[in-house]
Amino acid sequence: MASIADKFAHKEVFVTGGAGFVGSHIVDRLLLYGARVTVYDNFSTGREEFLGSALPHITLIRDDLLNVEKLTRSMLNMSFVFHIAANADISKNELDPTKCFYQNTVATQNVLEAMRLNGVREIAFASTGSVYDEGSVVPTPEDVHIGMQSSPYGASKMAGEVLIQAYSSMFDMQAHIFRFVSLLGKRYTHGHIFDFYKQLRADPTRLTVRGNGKQNKSYLLIDDCVDAMFFALENSSRDVDAAGNPKKVHTFNLGTPESCLLNDSISYITSHLGVSPVISYTGGDRGWKGDVPFIFLDTKRINDLGWKPRATIREAVVETVKFIDENRWVLERGK
Amino acid sequence: MASIADKFAHKEVFVTGGAGFVGSHIVDRLLLYGARVTVYDNFSTGREEFLGSALPHITLIRDDLLNVEKLTRSMLNMSFVFHIAANADISKNELDPTKCFYQNTVATQNVLEAMRLNGVREIAFASTGSVYDEGSVVPTPEDVHIGMQSSPYGASKMAGEVLIQAYSSMFDMQAHIFRFVSLLGKRYTHGHIFDFYKQLRADPTRLTVRGNGKQNKSYLLIDDCVDAMFFALENSSRDVDAAGNPKKVHTFNLGTPESCLLNDSISYITSHLGVSPVISYTGGDRGWKGDVPFIFLDTKRINDLGWKPRATIREAVVETVKFIDENRWVLERGK
Repeated sequence: MASIADKFAHKEVFVTGGAGFVGSHIVDRLLLYGARVTVYDNFSTGREEFLGSALPHITLIRDDLLNVEKLTRSMLNMSFVFHIAANADISKNELDPTKCFYQNTVATQNVLEAMRLNGVREIAFASTGSVYDEGSVVPTPEDVHIGMQSSPYGASKMAGEVLIQAYSSMFDMQAHIFRFVSLLGKRYTHGHIFDFYKQLRADPTRLTVRGNGKQNKSYLLIDDCVDAMFFALENSSRDVDAAGNPKKVHTFNLGTPESCLLNDSISYITSHLGVSPVISYTGGDRGWKGDVPFIFLDTKRINDLGWKPRATIREAVVETVKFIDENRWVLERGK
Repeated sequence: MASIADKFAHKEVFVTGGAGFVGSHIVDRLLLYGARVTVYDNFSTGREEFLGSALPHITLIRDDLLNVEKLTRSMLNMSFVFHIAANADISKNELDPTKCFYQNTVATQNVLEAMRLNGVREIAFASTGSVYDEGSVVPTPEDVHIGMQSSPYGASKMAGEVLIQAYSSMFDMQAHIFRFVSLLGKRYTHGHIFDFYKQLRADPTRLTVRGNGKQNKSYLLIDDCVDAMFFALENSSRDVDAAGNPKKVHTFNLGTPESCLLNDSISYITSHLGVSPVISYTGGDRGWKGDVPFIFLDTKRINDLGWKPRATIREAVVETVKFIDENRWVLERGK
């Protein structure tokens, strides 16, 4: 079996959202493997700072995935696409479900069609554990019956997944779909730690928490997530269907073997910062409409291939706080 | 319980694709119930002839669902939407998957967003048994794990379904999703009977069949289908979730308790027409790339509410041939 570095060495690799939290880590890894990387990003949440030392070594295209002509031209000669760009700020999707649909579903269709027109045959896609909504089985495995989408975000990602399935089957592509839990770590730009850090910086004696603090969530350190993605790409030939045949689409949950209450996460943050705020809760079991109060993924499929995460949720939370502490500019320009 | 006629009497009802095969039958029924009907159709496959005697009694808007401004304005004051318009010519989707995506998925998003902006809270959606792809269980029940989409058509409809789920949950809508088998009967405009009739009219001694003739499919007469839809709308309060609570989204398979081989269907057609063609097969177990060779839906959910179809598949096939025979103009202008 060729190593993962051999797979990507000297290859033309296209990364949508390559200037973002997740995408920029993938870019770093690809450069390490000797790939020739093209980043396509509209910089709606991406930052040039995240590309940092990678910047001189990549081709950077500043444009939107809804610009079909530019996207299609840009994908000439590519051999692999990491489709990471997304509207991932879940809690705001209620306000503009159409934006979420265009940025997550239509953009994915555009990527797939550009791949088809350019003969690009491999895609890795950043999906989400939110597609399970309130899983009928928890921890939730990949092949559970998915009954209902309750948020535009989960729906827009699920729609992206089914489009990828159809293109893979119809046009002989090979796909890897990764359903992430919430990701933490360096270059984190939005989410509860971001919100809490901002509040505590303004006033370390008070903290307002949406919901009741008992939302039970899973988190994964970005370094572990990227490790898992490349591990899966290297080892997925062993992920076969029930008849023992290779799959056109490999779907992997990525997460830690633990979940934590929002209140636990708050205690990790406040104890790291050395503050003891009075906490007030907005109430209800959800942080926002469409929030899923218990997300915990069964990661047996990738664990059985041999991967497991290195960081605990507590370590991931603390690393995130440290990153914000050392990079306060993300607060000023973040969402 | 109010009767279904009471539910729709004097109500403003919006029917997308209301000039098409399925939509026009729904329009007829709604007029019978005393509804005030607005048909929104781009006449890509719809026909004024299908509206026939209904035409003077409806508001007809000739436009495309991708015209968001027109669609949104048109939905003012509506209380119920039948979203029936679709690109349903499955066998051609391979050639233009983007068109299929826009006409089935983006159009559905546009309908949902227009409903949200106009405060319309009820939708009935024409989906398809194709969303099950090659079901892991046959006959296939509604709550099976759906593993993979292999065609742009199935994917585009599945994507439409998940968008409806999210809007229903997030914006307090009530949805009915109907997963049809292939429909037959009056106003039928495309499909295998159409193709065979055309061939046999040109030369009754020869018939070319795509695949091996052993594709195993299910069919439902349009009259039974429309009966089932209104029956479900009248009785779905009894379709509750596992905890006994009402559902935001009711999903119903609609089909007959039998399936038939393509060769059986051919024998119904040729014996009705009194011809004995030499049949040549193009070979393979599928009619086209992405064709699902065995579709058979488990309709227990709606049967348990008390509905069952009246026509057999054979009767539905014969009625379709009779319709084409008596309305040959559909051949000339059909696809």
